[in-house]
Amino acid sequence: MFEIAELGQTLSKEEFQKQEPELRVALLDLQTRLKATQRSVLIIISGVDGAGKGETVNLLHAWLDPRFLQAVAFDKPSDEEQSRPEYWRYWRKLPPRGRIGIFFGSWYTMPIVDRALKRKKKNAFARAMQRVNATERMLADDGTLIVKLWFHLSKEVQRRRLKRLEKDPETRWRVTGQDWENFKRYDRFREVSAEAVQATNTPEAPWVIVEGADPNWRSIFVVKHLVGQLTTLLEDAERSARPKPVPMPLPKKRPVTILDKLDLSLKAGKNVKEELAHWGAELNTVFRRAKRERFSTALVFEGMDAAGKGGAIRRITAALDARDYRIIPIAAPSSEERAQQYLWRFWRHMPPDGKIAIFDRSWYGRLLVERVEGFAMGPEWRRAPAEINAFEEQLTADGVILIKYWLHIDAAEQLRRFKDREATPYKRFKITEEDWRNRERLPQYMVAVNEMVEKTSTQFAPWTLVEANDKAYARIKVLRTMAERLRGAL
Amino acid sequence: MFEIAELGQTLSKEEFQKQEPELRVALLDLQTRLKATQRSVLIIISGVDGAGKGETVNLLHAWLDPRFLQAVAFDKPSDEEQSRPEYWRYWRKLPPRGRIGIFFGSWYTMPIVDRALKRKKKNAFARAMQRVNATERMLADDGTLIVKLWFHLSKEVQRRRLKRLEKDPETRWRVTGQDWENFKRYDRFREVSAEAVQATNTPEAPWVIVEGADPNWRSIFVVKHLVGQLTTLLEDAERSARPKPVPMPLPKKRPVTILDKLDLSLKAGKNVKEELAHWGAELNTVFRRAKRERFSTALVFEGMDAAGKGGAIRRITAALDARDYRIIPIAAPSSEERAQQYLWRFWRHMPPDGKIAIFDRSWYGRLLVERVEGFAMGPEWRRAPAEINAFEEQLTADGVILIKYWLHIDAAEQLRRFKDREATPYKRFKITEEDWRNRERLPQYMVAVNEMVEKTSTQFAPWTLVEANDKAYARIKVLRTMAERLRGAL
Repeated sequence: MFEIAELGQTLSKEEFQKQEPELRVALLDLQTRLKATQRSVLIIISGVDGAGKGETVNLLHAWLDPRFLQAVAFDKPSDEEQSRPEYWRYWRKLPPRGRIGIFFGSWYTMPIVDRALKRKKKNAFARAMQRVNATERMLADDGTLIVKLWFHLSKEVQRRRLKRLEKDPETRWRVTGQDWENFKRYDRFREVSAEAVQATNTPEAPWVIVEGADPNWRSIFVVKHLVGQLTTLLEDAERSARPKPVPMPLPKKRPVTILDKLDLSLKAGKNVKEELAHWGAELNTVFRRAKRERFSTALVFEGMDAAGKGGAIRRITAALDARDYRIIPIAAPSSEERAQQYLWRFWRHMPPDGKIAIFDRSWYGRLLVERVEGFAMGPEWRRAPAEINAFEEQLTADGVILIKYWLHIDAAEQLRRFKDREATPYKRFKITEEDWRNRERLPQYMVAVNEMVEKTSTQFAPWTLVEANDKAYARIKVLRTMAERLRGAL
Repeated sequence: MFEIAELGQTLSKEEFQKQEPELRVALLDLQTRLKATQRSVLIIISGVDGAGKGETVNLLHAWLDPRFLQAVAFDKPSDEEQSRPEYWRYWRKLPPRGRIGIFFGSWYTMPIVDRALKRKKKNAFARAMQRVNATERMLADDGTLIVKLWFHLSKEVQRRRLKRLEKDPETRWRVTGQDWENFKRYDRFREVSAEAVQATNTPEAPWVIVEGADPNWRSIFVVKHLVGQLTTLLEDAERSARPKPVPMPLPKKRPVTILDKLDLSLKAGKNVKEELAHWGAELNTVFRRAKRERFSTALVFEGMDAAGKGGAIRRITAALDARDYRIIPIAAPSSEERAQQYLWRFWRHMPPDGKIAIFDRSWYGRLLVERVEGFAMGPEWRRAPAEINAFEEQLTADGVILIKYWLHIDAAEQLRRFKDREATPYKRFKITEEDWRNRERLPQYMVAVNEMVEKTSTQFAPWTLVEANDKAYARIKVLRTMAERLRGAL
């Protein structure tokens, strides 16, 4: 695999200087055009020490407009990063649309190091590579150009390079004991790196192996590759316009869905107050244990309009200390959120260890309102279940307890509640034109919900469907199942 | 001072229950109306342990709509917070417009603890309180309602409370050795707290002392106060509309400004290349020292359109490693930024220890384009110099090296560069309608720049004016002065 980068290719200073001006103008022009598009570029820099990774990052800053370039060097995670799922730190640093970002060190670094030092087994390494692939796929599907550069040096060249740096008093400080330690493991690292590159050499995010020995050759090679990739991206971006939203059509016949199986006549027993108090206390106790064991929890509340999401959330928060949870009401995304893949705005709210994030509506908007109203195009909502399952698998594998509720009421009960809200002065703000409009699309929503539950109820993150015609019943069920899920996870 | 909260006031359960429903409806209504305004509310919770602070935060979450409430408990700073100026952690958690935020623990906690334990001297404590006042003043002037609640218990009541908690097996865990340690220092804490409250009891952010002994009395007292404050805020917010922008008028006669004193005929010597290389190397060396000593650096680049900010920045970045700096180009604020006081968007980019943030345009927009175009109203830009000086004083006191450049060219040189940009294909994107429009307001800009330099050139953050008609001269001067400022700060 890496043999193609051991050919000893070089470029003379004259040839370099001849090619430089044109490439610089081309790069700058492409960067400027990129700003006007909805696309972003992520350059991932990996490879052997001493093969010119840092120099390349600096070269790109010199040749591009550095103001619209953002390089992130991932070193040890900060404690804020440490206390969250592994990929949180990468998502928070992704370049927004119109920009170029450079990841120096990335989701590749730790799996490769851990595998080379045999701290990670073969299967765990394979899973880590799957996680990489799922993430890169999501970003690429969202319009991000992913350029992955692997900088390579043969063993002999690396040895000579370290020796030379050591000899010169000016550069001696750059060679540490760790460098020689790593060099001793050259063959092992080469083997694991080859596995990583092979496992993640996908059509949407292919690797390019860069021969790192000669700076001139390396620089021109990288820049030419980038120019080529950017040119293709921009041709594509400038040709395609986003079509107008097309709402989902009315189903031909009344759909039969999983929601029809719910027994909406279920009612709370007589001792509502006692049951609420009991399960509230239970939840409090079990959460305090989860907190001590540093679990974090994410709750998702979805449901029909007026199904009582707010009331259920209040029952949960009443049982907890306000310092332990955060409620994230999902409305229209901010401009910073619109400039990223749609899961970005949820990643940013992932709770640290010991805390709870309560999402009042969630990433499932993609499969509900966005699908029904046509804001998400066909390919977007069709791939969403796979993206969401990969996302939730990551969260739960990293120790987040994820609990998802669908609160369901029937059309008659909804109408009753809408009218009640309109008639009560201090509830009137809760009912809007949009609620009535959504109601007209109830059959479409039922189809969408049915598919959502079918495709995203996984073993690691099952949906809990809540019969909510009776508010008390729904609240007790939410409290009880949350306490049970927490207990089960401990 | 605290005697008014030792009167032994109580409220019966019946009386509490009588008042509760009306207050809850009022609170919810006010919170809903707040969402439609440009105002935010910051509730600061301080005071004696055991006086009901946590219970009050929970009560507010139960009585308000918790989805639009955000409570932040400030405990030990995270390492990301630790490596930045002290107030960075508070700014990042401020509630946006339309929302209510609760600070539980705040900028008061550490100064009071440090002073009580005599880790901080009288003068340092006084300065800390000034910093609080300057910040609260800024937020209040921006339309934030600041409600400061000091929860108090007399010494005897606190002693009884700790004893009672200890007696009950259910609550014993809540009393730690630290609580009794603190209790031993009751008198000292009371004295220092009184000083803090007195020093920060300002008209724009007055303290309210809450008698914490009786939960019913305390809760109704706090909620009534909040309802009163919110009512006044909303009356004010709903009455006043933001006027249309009025651009700054053309000065009657050509203004004589500090910029006229600049000798724009200054030119670089013959050895431009050598000088640039020399000062680049010098900058590299001195920055590496600053990095080792964990200084952080913030550079501000302001200047005439086409004065060469971009080119000067590139000379700096060429001398550095791309992993050590971040360039922040300032354009129109995002929706999240518009929902905060105008310094918020700059606070968020403050660099951690050892790093450089390069602002390509900056908070001085308030005194330049916003003033000239009328986007900032009279009171806003008039108070900006005081706000900016307080901000910069904080940064520099906390170890940030702050370097501010104004790059100046004369009108003739600017015209020449505009025309050159229009004539050169790959420079054309750099010139827009807006540049020509700004040029028509050159006299106004000169007045604005003159006042900006006069009012914000402080000892801790002086302006460096750069004669930039000759690009090489300007770049050398920027490199040289930056290297000198860094060296001087070490």
